[in-house]
Amino acid sequence: MAEESIVYVGKKPTMNYVLAIVTQFNSNVDKITIKARGKSISKAVDIAEITKNRFMPNAKYANIKIETEKVEGERGISNVSSIEITMKKE
Amino acid sequence: MAEESIVYVGKKPTMNYVLAIVTQFNSNVDKITIKARGKSISKAVDIAEITKNRFMPNAKYANIKIETEKVEGERGISNVSSIEITMKKE
Repeated sequence: MAEESIVYVGKKPTMNYVLAIVTQFNSNVDKITIKARGKSISKAVDIAEITKNRFMPNAKYANIKIETEKVEGERGISNVSSIEITMKKE
Repeated sequence: MAEESIVYVGKKPTMNYVLAIVTQFNSNVDKITIKARGKSISKAVDIAEITKNRFMPNAKYANIKIETEKVEGERGISNVSSIEITMKKE
């Protein structure tokens, strides 16, 4: 059975996430969703594009979704944009 | 005839772009594509979400595309991620 996986983008270097995704695609995972919020959204797009163009030419974007999430921080609840990029190995 | 329009996201404040888009939707434009590169990608997602959630509840995302563009800079040609968010007024 093929598996699905979620990768949350945070403060690590871009290539850490790329390598994690490539490693998963090369094992039993055929569908990975990259999730990011706020300023990490640009990094999520970099991660997806580098994965696809340099390492996984047979991966396709199955879905790209943007939305607004409510996040509780020090100054109360605020709205933060988020992205979900779902990649599938063909 | 309804018109299409493109908004390029740069260094101006987020709300400038939101207001430009809302103004266009309220005139003769029914399809707007928001384009951004690199670190502006996060801002493009903010602009789209604020437009949709606060000002244009009847707007839908028609398409979200991410890709890599070659950009010529001071240090030669480099790869930059980009996003295109197409919104349609229903």
